[in-house]
This record gives sequence, structure tokens and C-alpha cells, in this order.
Amino acid sequence: MQAVILAAGQGKRFMGEGQTPKPLVLLLGLTLLERSILSCRNAGIDELIVVLGHRSEEISPLLSEWEKRHRVRIFPVENRSWREGNGTSALAAASHVSGQFLLLMADHVFAPAVIPRLIAATGGSGSCWLLVDPRLRYDTDPDFTRVRLDDNKITDIGKGISPYDAVDTGIFLCGEALFAALAQSTGAGDGSLTGGIKRLATAGQMRAVDIGPHYWMDVDTKQRLKQAERKLINNLPKPHQDGFIATFINRPLSVRLSAALARRPFLSRRLTPNTLSLVSLLIILAGAGLFAVTGYTGTLIAGILIQFGSILDGCDGELARLTFRESRFGAWLDTILDRYGDIAVSTVITYAGWIQHPSPWIWAGGIIAMAGLLLAGYTKKEYQIRYKESLPNTGWAKLIKRDLRLFMLFIGAVAGHPYCALLAMGLLSHIGIWRLFHNGLRLRGHQSDEPPTAK
Amino acid sequence: MQAVILAAGQGKRFMGEGQTPKPLVLLLGLTLLERSILSCRNAGIDELIVVLGHRSEEISPLLSEWEKRHRVRIFPVENRSWREGNGTSALAAASHVSGQFLLLMADHVFAPAVIPRLIAATGGSGSCWLLVDPRLRYDTDPDFTRVRLDDNKITDIGKGISPYDAVDTGIFLCGEALFAALAQSTGAGDGSLTGGIKRLATAGQMRAVDIGPHYWMDVDTKQRLKQAERKLINNLPKPHQDGFIATFINRPLSVRLSAALARRPFLSRRLTPNTLSLVSLLIILAGAGLFAVTGYTGTLIAGILIQFGSILDGCDGELARLTFRESRFGAWLDTILDRYGDIAVSTVITYAGWIQHPSPWIWAGGIIAMAGLLLAGYTKKEYQIRYKESLPNTGWAKLIKRDLRLFMLFIGAVAGHPYCALLAMGLLSHIGIWRLFHNGLRLRGHQSDEPPTAK
Repeated sequence: MQAVILAAGQGKRFMGEGQTPKPLVLLLGLTLLERSILSCRNAGIDELIVVLGHRSEEISPLLSEWEKRHRVRIFPVENRSWREGNGTSALAAASHVSGQFLLLMADHVFAPAVIPRLIAATGGSGSCWLLVDPRLRYDTDPDFTRVRLDDNKITDIGKGISPYDAVDTGIFLCGEALFAALAQSTGAGDGSLTGGIKRLATAGQMRAVDIGPHYWMDVDTKQRLKQAERKLINNLPKPHQDGFIATFINRPLSVRLSAALARRPFLSRRLTPNTLSLVSLLIILAGAGLFAVTGYTGTLIAGILIQFGSILDGCDGELARLTFRESRFGAWLDTILDRYGDIAVSTVITYAGWIQHPSPWIWAGGIIAMAGLLLAGYTKKEYQIRYKESLPNTGWAKLIKRDLRLFMLFIGAVAGHPYCALLAMGLLSHIGIWRLFHNGLRLRGHQSDEPPTAK
Repeated sequence: MQAVILAAGQGKRFMGEGQTPKPLVLLLGLTLLERSILSCRNAGIDELIVVLGHRSEEISPLLSEWEKRHRVRIFPVENRSWREGNGTSALAAASHVSGQFLLLMADHVFAPAVIPRLIAATGGSGSCWLLVDPRLRYDTDPDFTRVRLDDNKITDIGKGISPYDAVDTGIFLCGEALFAALAQSTGAGDGSLTGGIKRLATAGQMRAVDIGPHYWMDVDTKQRLKQAERKLINNLPKPHQDGFIATFINRPLSVRLSAALARRPFLSRRLTPNTLSLVSLLIILAGAGLFAVTGYTGTLIAGILIQFGSILDGCDGELARLTFRESRFGAWLDTILDRYGDIAVSTVITYAGWIQHPSPWIWAGGIIAMAGLLLAGYTKKEYQIRYKESLPNTGWAKLIKRDLRLFMLFIGAVAGHPYCALLAMGLLSHIGIWRLFHNGLRLRGHQSDEPPTAK
């Protein structure tokens, strides 16, 4: 599939002449236009038609740079009539697309998940589709383009219309019918995209898809840019996956750190999320090493390093999401490196415990505790494979998460008893594993695709 | 969906009068009729119409017993005209079914996977479908019902026809059209099922689905019963999952043990596969405990127990498959109990090593080795979750499987150096994990749904 991105407008309300053209405004280290391009790429669309107009000479050279850096194909199209409205910009792309295509505005920021959502909802059908936001149907902002709906059919669209059911997000999935409608409306003197869409709506060819829980924003003022940044940052935590300590301590700190990194493109472009995973491991390993040093100061610094490593452990995924660099390999690397960190910390804490009380029971306890930590993760994976869904993030599931484990070791180090904290976490993990079993047992009876008798 | 199972015939060629009725002949502890019923149940079909005729008074009382034991609904239907052919038996079920239904012969044994295959291949479409075996198209056995095909359309069916393209497996997915055809053919004096199917074929309403790689067998002689037993047993190993030792040592022994258990219904009905998992763990734990006893004899017995536990570890899944008691919970329990066995064995071997050489390095080595064993499994699960497929069963994957680990510990025990074997296995596991990474790295570039840049 192809995507057309309109980046021809002036963005007058955003700022005066002489400053950065609006598509090149930076939002957390990436330009607005790059964010649209990368959202498409991550949805599997790698052929992009970018329509330029206002100050195209400044944007154009960057496109070929991005083509290489982001591994996409970008075809720039110049629209000399951009002053006549964004409909003429869409029309300028007509000869470059065939079949269904995505139509985006360069200055709209949105959750990457909305593109797959739009494509899935339309199911390859021939109409033109607009992603709309019904949550804003009571918002009276005069800048919103409003949409009136009859079921999922758009019956009217425009800034002034009332009553209305939703707001136009500027994210379209269109067929070539759009160009015919635009040719008519521009011919009749209306150069706006909305003019063409209105004609399609009148012909009964325009349908709406609900944006669902996802965010989007039309960045047309500096204040909106700030709001968009906040939206991006607020969407970094994963409330359905995060544990107690992650929610209240680690995430609030790590998202600030990730945002600070993302804001420095020179740094964030060189610092891959995988490197961050490695840095987090190195800090944890340094902390582990310090546990071997006798004396309270070493133990305290070790504990602090481990907690810092735990916070930094959130940044790899966050930076990846902020800069469109998520990968399954990265997620995999992160989880395996985390386990190596856990092994190192448990081993050295046990060694330090044995130095103080040289009994084989100290070692046996340490081994069993470490096995609990590793098995907790193992059991969660096994659950996910067998039941084809993640373990529900219940209180018990949160008790066997890494954020809590490392925090408890940090507290144990502060209290001068890291070995006791290790034993406590190990015990908790083993109990957690057997709780999971208990849940598995109960689940057993409710799975419809399960043979009725137990294996 | 409903299933109709024909169990009315005499099975004359099987044995003389006075012996067990053919549907009640035992095959690895379950009667032939029960196997058909359980194959349906495990495919999600829990409403079964069983047509009885010859010696129905002996079969009938068992049906209500099975209903309770196997948690299915069974409706017995008596066909007094069973002597006139199996077409009359199918016809007797007519008033009990509606829509599409499965039609099976009680004396046919087949891989449980063929029912979902048949249902998936027909895709809910209205025709009548017959599962056929093209592998037997050069077999000249006159007892096979032969099928001539034009693409997937059946153009002729019968014992004598020639040329022919495949053999009728006796597994059908039919609509109500079958009953109309059977009424015509029995009216015309042909009481056989093939007579009705032939009429459907002539009308162009009969289609074929290839049985693929799966086994099936028409158990009409005692020799065929023996062959069917061999088929069931030979299909127990999982060549795409088993490691080196499993393939050559453990499986050949465990399938014999599982078959011996299955042949004793009194025992196998009480011994659930989950109990077997637990027994295997207890034997491994006993072995682990013996490693703590100083002296070679203790170590040797410990090694033997561990290898025996490893062999027995295959039996839970095998018995489950032989007796239709597979469950996701059982598979999950098995894998977690295995990990606990690994932890116990590694801990006690390390302890025994420390007794001989009281140095903290012995403990550190043991911990890191055990972590390798646990992480190997963890990495495999993680791979499966991220790449949505099992880790390919390459040589490296086989090197980090449990069968090899426990066998190496057994060899180490025989040699009097279990701790060295533990260290070797741990090292191998860690290397294996990093090989997996290497594969992950290579895979990364080939995943089409992966963003092109690394996280």
C-alpha cells in the first residue's frame, strides 16, 4: 500500500515566516513529517508520496536523507497551487498512486496503532474511509472539522456544521474516487480537501472508522505541540504490564529520562535502544560486583546502582517507541540481558552472605532464591504460550515482577541485609509460581477449546 | 457440530460369534468405539449419535458409562435392518441430525488431527466431503473402497473400480443430502453407504479432501488391529521436537512403557498423565537426594535414578496422547515440574562438589551452571513468543534440551564426577543461548512484519 502525506501548507497559525517550516518542527527529536513517515513504515507501508508546497526547497533535501536513514521510498511531489487549499495538494499526488492509499497530514501526530486499526476496519473494501474521534463531539473548538454520521456513513462534514457526531482526525484511507471528487470541487472554486470529501459524502461514498482509545493531535499551534509531546510521553508506560514499583517509581523517572534522550537527536540517533539495554546491564553488573566488597558503603552503593539500573531498564523500550525503533529482537535481547543481570546480582549477594556466615545453607538458599527469580519469568512465558495470552496483571503477577525484585534488593542493601532480601524475593517468586498454577487449574475448566478431562 | 458413528455391523471377517463385538475390541486400553468418540470430543464435537445393530444389547449399556466418564452426550440409535448394509445404519440417524455432521465408522482408527483437517478443508461449505488417501492409489487390496477423482470432485466410488486415484478412509463430513441419496439407493435394493455416496457423486455433490500425512486404518482383521496398535505407538515420538538422547534412548523405552500402561485400562484410567509427571519428579528428587550421600555407590544410583526419571518424563505426554487426555494445563505442569527437578539436581550436585572441595567457587560455578539450564528453557520460550513459532530443532537446539542434560549428568555420575558434568552442561547451555541470539540476529533481517531498523 502507498501513503500520501500532505506537507504543502503554510501553517500560518503556528508561527511567523522565517522560522522552521511546520513539517520540520521537532517533536521529541523527530520532525512532524518524519513521524508521519515512520508511522506508515511501521504499519508496513514503505512507499510514501510527500506533497510539498510552501518552502519546499527546505524540506525536499531532507527527504532523500530520510529515505536512507529510515529505509523507506519517498516520492516528493511539488504542488505549485498549494495556496489554493490542501485539496489541490492531494490532487497533485493523483498520478502517483493506484488503488487504495493512506492519506495523512504532515502536522498531525497520532498513536502508531491507528493506521493498522483503520486498515483492519475497512477490510480492503472500496469506499473512502475517514478515521473520526467521537470523544470530541462535545468539544466546541471552532478549528475542528466536524463530521455528521448515519451509522458509519458520513452524511456531512465541515467546520461550521451542527449537530455533529465526531471530529475529523485527518487520517484517511481512500480510493481513486477521491481525485474525481476533488477535481470537481476545485473546479467549482473550493480548493480544500474537505470540499472533495463533502462531495464523496453526498454521493454516499464516505464512511467513518472510530479511532477508539488512541490519541491524535492536529499540531497547529505551539501550545498543541506541547500537548502532543505530553501525549507521547504519557503513553509510554504500559499500565497493563507494569508492576507496583514501575508504576510509582521507575516509570515516572524513566519516561523523563527517555524524553530527555529523544529530545537530543544527535544522541538518540547514535544511542540505540539495544545499547541502552546493554548499559542497564552494565550498571547492574557493576552493582553486583560491589556487593562483593565488604562494608556497608559498598553494599549501599551496590543497592543504589541496582535500583538505577532497574529504572534505566525501562528506557530502552520507551526510547524505541518514541523513535519508532521497536523490534522483536530488541525486546528479546532486553529480557535475556535482564536475566543475566538477575543471575549476577543473586550470585554475588549469596557470596557476600556466605562470607559473613560460611555455611553451605547460605549457598543452597541463594540458589533456590535465584531459581525462583528465573522460574517466575519462565512460568509467565509458559503461561503466555499455553493460554495464548499474557498473564493477567493481577496483584500476584505484580509481586513476581523484576521492578519489585530489584527494589527489594535495593531496600535490603540500604538496610544492610541484601541476602535476606534475596531470600524473601526468592520465596515470594516460588509462591507466585504456585499461585499461577492455582489460576491455571481454575482456568482449565473455562477453556472451551480444552478437552473436558484433565491431561 | 454433531457426529454419527456407525457401530451396527457384524465384523464377520474379524472373528467368529461369541467373542467381543467389534466396536468393543480393545486397542491400547480403549475400545475402538471409544476411540472414535474421543477423537470427536477432542475436535470439539460433543454430541454423538451412535448407531447400533448387531449385539446392540452388549454395547448399549457402555454408552451411558462413557457419557459420564468422557463428558460427552451420546444418543444411541437402534438399526434393526443392520443386516441390509451400513447405508441403512446411516439412514437410521437421519431424524437425529441437522445441518452438517461428521460420519465415522466405529472400527476405523485414525490420527485425531484428521477431523480438524477435514472440517477446516471444507470451510463450512454445503457439499458432502470424504477424506481420501491418495497414498494407497497403487495398493491393490480388494477390500479398499476406491475413489476416482476429477480435481477434488469424486466421479466414481466402489470396491471394483479401475483406474482410481485414492482410497475411501470412511471419514465423511455430510449434509442432509446424504439421507435423500441413501433413501433412493436403499429403495433400489442397495443398502450400502457406498451406494448412497455413488448417487451423490453422480449428481456432482461429492468432494474429496486429502488426508495428508496422517495415519488411518480400517480394523477389519486381527492383523489390522496389531498394525493399528503399531501405528499409534510409532506416532508417539515427536521427531521435530526430540533431542539426541530422546530420539535414540529415551523415546524407544518410554513409548514401550506408555503402551504397556495404556494396555492396562484399570491402571491407566487411575494413573493420570499429571500423576506420571509428579512420579517422574519424585524419582528425579530421590536421585538428587542421593547425590548428597558420599561414596561412589550413592552417586551411581543417583545417576541411574535421574536417567530413569528422564525416560519416565516422556511417558506423561505419551499416555495423554494414547488415551485422549492431553491438556494445556498438563503440558504446563510438566514443564514447570521439570524445572524444579533441574533445580534440585543442580543444587545437590553442587553441594556434593563443595563437600569434596570446600571453596566458594564451587558454589558460584554451580549457580551459573544451573542458571544456564534454566535460561536455556527460558530463551526457547521467549523465542517462541517473539517469533510466533517454536525454535527450529537444529543441532544447537538439541544441545540445550533436557534429555541430553540429564543423560550427561548420568554419565558424569557413572564416571564419578557429576559436578564436572553439571559445569559442562551449564557452559553448553550458556553457549547455546548466545547461538540463539546469533540466529535471532540473522532472522531479524528476514521478518517482513519487522520494522527495517533495529530497535
